[in-house]
Amino acid sequence: MDELERIDAYWRAANYLSAGQIYLLDNPLLTEPLRPEHVKPRLLGHWGTTPGLNFCFAHLNRIIRERDQDMIYIAGPGHGGPATVAHSWLEGSYSQVYPHVSQDAAGMRRLFRQFSFPGGIPSHAAPETPGSIHEGGELGYSLAHAYGAAFDNPGLVVACIIGDGEAETGPLATSWHANKFVDPRRDGAVLPILHLNGYKIANPTVLARIPEAELIKLMEGYGYRPHVVAGHDPATVHHLMAETLDTVFTQIDEVKSGSSDHWPMIILRTPKGWTGPATVGGLPVEGTWRSHQVPLAHVHDDPEALAELERWMRSYRPEELFDDTGRPVPDVRATVPAGRRRMSDSPHANGGELLKPLVLPDYRDYAAKVEAPATTTTEPTRVLGALLRDVIAENPDTFRLLGPDEVASNRLGAVFEVTSRAWNAERLPTDENLAPGGRVMEVLSEHLCQGWLEGYLLTGRHGLFTSYEAFIHIVDSMFNQHAKWLESARKIPWRRPVASLNYLLSSHVWRQDHNGFSHQDPGFLDVVVNKKATVTRVYLPPDTNTLLSTADHCLRSRDYVNVIVAGKQPVLDLMTMDQAQAHCARGLGILPWASTDEGAEPDVVLACAGDIPTLETLAAADLLRRHLPDLRVRVVNIVDLMRLQPPSEHPHGMPDVAYDALFTTDKPVIFNFHGYPWLIHRLTYRRNGHDNLHVRGYKEEGTTTTPFDMAMLNDIDRFHLVMDVIDRVPGLGERCAHLRQHMADERMRARAHTREHGEDLPEISDWTWRH
Amino acid sequence: MDELERIDAYWRAANYLSAGQIYLLDNPLLTEPLRPEHVKPRLLGHWGTTPGLNFCFAHLNRIIRERDQDMIYIAGPGHGGPATVAHSWLEGSYSQVYPHVSQDAAGMRRLFRQFSFPGGIPSHAAPETPGSIHEGGELGYSLAHAYGAAFDNPGLVVACIIGDGEAETGPLATSWHANKFVDPRRDGAVLPILHLNGYKIANPTVLARIPEAELIKLMEGYGYRPHVVAGHDPATVHHLMAETLDTVFTQIDEVKSGSSDHWPMIILRTPKGWTGPATVGGLPVEGTWRSHQVPLAHVHDDPEALAELERWMRSYRPEELFDDTGRPVPDVRATVPAGRRRMSDSPHANGGELLKPLVLPDYRDYAAKVEAPATTTTEPTRVLGALLRDVIAENPDTFRLLGPDEVASNRLGAVFEVTSRAWNAERLPTDENLAPGGRVMEVLSEHLCQGWLEGYLLTGRHGLFTSYEAFIHIVDSMFNQHAKWLESARKIPWRRPVASLNYLLSSHVWRQDHNGFSHQDPGFLDVVVNKKATVTRVYLPPDTNTLLSTADHCLRSRDYVNVIVAGKQPVLDLMTMDQAQAHCARGLGILPWASTDEGAEPDVVLACAGDIPTLETLAAADLLRRHLPDLRVRVVNIVDLMRLQPPSEHPHGMPDVAYDALFTTDKPVIFNFHGYPWLIHRLTYRRNGHDNLHVRGYKEEGTTTTPFDMAMLNDIDRFHLVMDVIDRVPGLGERCAHLRQHMADERMRARAHTREHGEDLPEISDWTWRH
Repeated sequence: MDELERIDAYWRAANYLSAGQIYLLDNPLLTEPLRPEHVKPRLLGHWGTTPGLNFCFAHLNRIIRERDQDMIYIAGPGHGGPATVAHSWLEGSYSQVYPHVSQDAAGMRRLFRQFSFPGGIPSHAAPETPGSIHEGGELGYSLAHAYGAAFDNPGLVVACIIGDGEAETGPLATSWHANKFVDPRRDGAVLPILHLNGYKIANPTVLARIPEAELIKLMEGYGYRPHVVAGHDPATVHHLMAETLDTVFTQIDEVKSGSSDHWPMIILRTPKGWTGPATVGGLPVEGTWRSHQVPLAHVHDDPEALAELERWMRSYRPEELFDDTGRPVPDVRATVPAGRRRMSDSPHANGGELLKPLVLPDYRDYAAKVEAPATTTTEPTRVLGALLRDVIAENPDTFRLLGPDEVASNRLGAVFEVTSRAWNAERLPTDENLAPGGRVMEVLSEHLCQGWLEGYLLTGRHGLFTSYEAFIHIVDSMFNQHAKWLESARKIPWRRPVASLNYLLSSHVWRQDHNGFSHQDPGFLDVVVNKKATVTRVYLPPDTNTLLSTADHCLRSRDYVNVIVAGKQPVLDLMTMDQAQAHCARGLGILPWASTDEGAEPDVVLACAGDIPTLETLAAADLLRRHLPDLRVRVVNIVDLMRLQPPSEHPHGMPDVAYDALFTTDKPVIFNFHGYPWLIHRLTYRRNGHDNLHVRGYKEEGTTTTPFDMAMLNDIDRFHLVMDVIDRVPGLGERCAHLRQHMADERMRARAHTREHGEDLPEISDWTWRH
Repeated sequence: MDELERIDAYWRAANYLSAGQIYLLDNPLLTEPLRPEHVKPRLLGHWGTTPGLNFCFAHLNRIIRERDQDMIYIAGPGHGGPATVAHSWLEGSYSQVYPHVSQDAAGMRRLFRQFSFPGGIPSHAAPETPGSIHEGGELGYSLAHAYGAAFDNPGLVVACIIGDGEAETGPLATSWHANKFVDPRRDGAVLPILHLNGYKIANPTVLARIPEAELIKLMEGYGYRPHVVAGHDPATVHHLMAETLDTVFTQIDEVKSGSSDHWPMIILRTPKGWTGPATVGGLPVEGTWRSHQVPLAHVHDDPEALAELERWMRSYRPEELFDDTGRPVPDVRATVPAGRRRMSDSPHANGGELLKPLVLPDYRDYAAKVEAPATTTTEPTRVLGALLRDVIAENPDTFRLLGPDEVASNRLGAVFEVTSRAWNAERLPTDENLAPGGRVMEVLSEHLCQGWLEGYLLTGRHGLFTSYEAFIHIVDSMFNQHAKWLESARKIPWRRPVASLNYLLSSHVWRQDHNGFSHQDPGFLDVVVNKKATVTRVYLPPDTNTLLSTADHCLRSRDYVNVIVAGKQPVLDLMTMDQAQAHCARGLGILPWASTDEGAEPDVVLACAGDIPTLETLAAADLLRRHLPDLRVRVVNIVDLMRLQPPSEHPHGMPDVAYDALFTTDKPVIFNFHGYPWLIHRLTYRRNGHDNLHVRGYKEEGTTTTPFDMAMLNDIDRFHLVMDVIDRVPGLGERCAHLRQHMADERMRARAHTREHGEDLPEISDWTWRH
């Protein structure tokens, strides 16, 4: 056999194994005539995209062998599971990690049975699939993942097969532009292969039905050098693909060496369900949407369909591809690269193998100096910027900071002392902080930021994504999928831990008074806590030193999604570094200097989570101390929100006895919360004393106004908290009717003042505990 | 003055008014020298994009007048509020709806003060802005909104200014392809104007920094005929823009008449902050990111800055633009179109004015015939498909059905008996149900579906968006913004009610066993209920007839977001049409035939919401009836989830007394829920007897398995519910230890059976109430 014949044999083997996964329970090598009981009772899986995925993989393997090329493979099209699984089995890596699915007939039988079967494996590339960093479930993120994997991997080529279905999604449509952020010298290459098989589920695809000249312009407009590989006859397309790949890898070298500016890409136009049944029941199937899932149905009941399935599978000539034991024959195995060069066994696709801990400076060195609590203010994110600057300096190849053009406005600008924004498009003399290879990735697409970071993390690196709180909802669904990936991967022994995905949500709901209602939404936290407690963490550091401690913790953690909410505006410094460290280690605790319970049972607990709710709570405690000096008030601040849950629900959950000791079992608790108030109820509804818990938070009231008015509109302001205390503490209501009215008046006065002058919160410079 | 001089005067007036909004509290006409107290204390707003927005508006008005063109204007760039507000004031429509902001000096003073000021108006186009259907807060949806507005409006041109910042977002990047879904004969035209001012917040933009030849190819690749208008000198750019618009509208005519296939678009390249301060403190401002927000800061304290501001504002020569009373001079007013042709007064931009109720067939005519409850099955969405087919037939120009290629797979295929999928790209002989003007919009982009539907609804039409439940999270953020729009619009007297945005979430979590973990997520409901109760509704019809009744209700409603969750698989028919109608009207109720409480106080309440949880609950009730015939079990089904909230929280909320009568105050309630269980706690935590409420639901356990196993993994299965009853009803625990063990065994047996055979739920064909 010559090289292309061997590639064809490999391709046929992969196609055979793919069809086998969809259809067969038994008789995997077709050593006997196919009978109904050999076929799965419920036919699931997607054939349509599979032959194309197999075709690309087979051809890329030649390049890997010939050039000793480091490469990984991202299967973008949905439900391409049969293909990615088939390859890892053919390459031997599947049996490496799942020894019971051995590379023989018995293993092949198991391989077939388990596919899309109860207790088996998904019908798309997934964490379970060796060689995969990309789930083929929700569509649209393949190319962003590919670029994320390529950053800071100069020797790597990421081959990214893009389905023409997913190419219609927004995230994919903008991902093409990621080439402007690649530094050819320090980053790897992405090779996009746009696979036009023409159809999605039941419809043609847009890119398959525009004139080819238009499609080529589109790709050139995106900044690529497109190459078309099209056809139906396998031999012809084999030749064309091989030639094209040789050209394309030469062009990649040209870009890497600086002699070209434009990365190549391939447009592969082959029939959907290629090599499958051409027609079924008189209707065309190959080359149409009818081959999307299971081209032949009713194989159980219809002998003719069963015979057609057997003809189809035998058309790959399995007897030439597998020996009597079921092992791939030498000609097929000869096409497979060696060892870790196999794409199904690349360490890049099991990034934890490559993960090195960040070199982290001592975060305590950046501490805000705090002589007395709540007397000075600092901008938390500005201080964090200094820490991140040094993280970048110490980890020049393994850490990136991402955001939709908000790094500077979120006051993390110190990072620009040591690096720039990654930018490989035109630069002008007036530009600042733009350079190829910059460690800061800014693009006005939360989807790209998230996709890049996911790809970067899953290939063994570290990062932080900073965004407006309201607009992080743009990537709710990507977060969901990544959390599901982490939850699945956690249970797979051969998947090594990766760095956590860290969000910093600044410009949060309470400081979007000037931007108005559309910018006010703290609901990402609700999305996050719906995912498994094993992988989600939420932190609301109330001041600068707690933010530093939290950030250090998150940057060291593995396999989590960490959400940090912290404002960029000046906030009161509450704790020295030692205190902050201890507070963060506990996750929550009493602020003794703001409390008047003197270690005894309080009359009321003021709980708070989030910087602005904490500020208002402290101000309320001050008012209470002033006006009701005998009232025993305990102020509790919560940094780690998951501490509120029972330990049965979250590993950070605190035992009931500890919860009761802090919050009491029978005293009123006024909880001032950063987000939607019901989230606190959802976390605590099984706690003792839950009936006494009264939560204030954002209740979707907002407009263009002052920060203080935002607090007031949602009843989280200091005056309302005092009124809540009066209303809830037994006996106070009657005694303090006058004070209550006074608070209500003060509230309106303060509001009118801020609204009239367009000013910020009134300063309280004379809090009682300063004396 | 000649025409272009008048346009320039109008432009200068708009620029003057824009700067005035950002800076001035007083002295609006600069009738006296500018003093610090004339300037706002807190300078907010965004100048950078504004002159470009003003420029386009001024020029489009000429076209409207000359051609008597019906046109609306979408301001895509973020924070373009000063521009859109300035125009509606100049056109007189602002004073029409806000008479206190009159078209004179006093009104101009109010116009200036209110902008981005407490109690005032947002800094972006918003519901408050006459002529707007697009909020400029979260970015990326302008072009999708524009196409949605153009569908079925054959006489309309939607001018859509696209910022080069938002052009980096995914949703915008894919929106360009919407031209393949436009039927030139029955739809209007969209004129995209890509405004390259070069910068976003602190960074250059991608599209401004690629070679112009590449940008032109990109636009041609998207299928447009691009026209470049570029420059700095106003006179030059005026001429070029006027010429180009003449060409462009001729080309629009050509497409409309069939003599061209390619819609035109404009690339407008002008400096950011055009006509503003060229430099400040020695640094370039005009033409850089420094003009993004407030080009001159410190005007209060720095006399030089104040003087510079005055020079800048006087550079527009306000004395030539406004008469002594502050009214725009005749030359400025002459450029404004008449009456409803003014873009700021277009009825399309206040779509409720044009809204006609749908002609709805009697949904009762489609009823599934139900002889006895829970004896037959029907596919709910297939029956709904027949209703939707007739809705489409009866409303050929005002209703669209949208989905990411799932209309057929969600079994709504009956619609193709009367219409096709909208498709204006190439068609092949093998295609089915594709045609220009089809009422079904299928594209693999939830963003496009959502954006199109929002644009379609806000211009006074109707629609339904059907999607996989898990992947509707892709548009969480768009939902948030639309809900906020509706909530704001509701409070604006001149905004007329529009049709509700209706979601049908089929292919839901409980039937994604075969697609696996990545496809399992019922959390959209949690996102929805975070928004204001005034605009959100959630329905979980348990069978076909309740789905029909719910759909009819939603299609008639106004100003809501309605979420309907209903499966496509066969479900038990529970109610006759009469019963379904009554049940939906109540929103929840007892299923007497499944209950054994005989109208008396029950021992336990089995509550359920959602089709699969209801099925399992009914099966559990059957088991209880069989094994514990003396136990008084009440089965309550909830269709309208918001009924569970107190009336103080949601208008659908039921009074405590009614809630107590249904759920009791002291008996165990086992609530089997479709979604994440804590959502039920969040809705009911203030209810009597909440401590006795035990909710089962999806707790993020899933894999590739059988439907029944999905139920089991999350403890919503019939056997576990019986075990829950035994555990919760006082006294049963000891008495029924044997039964409990039996249930546990049955459970494992049923699971093993389904997993071994890859089969569906075991049939229960012999439920006790059938006898």
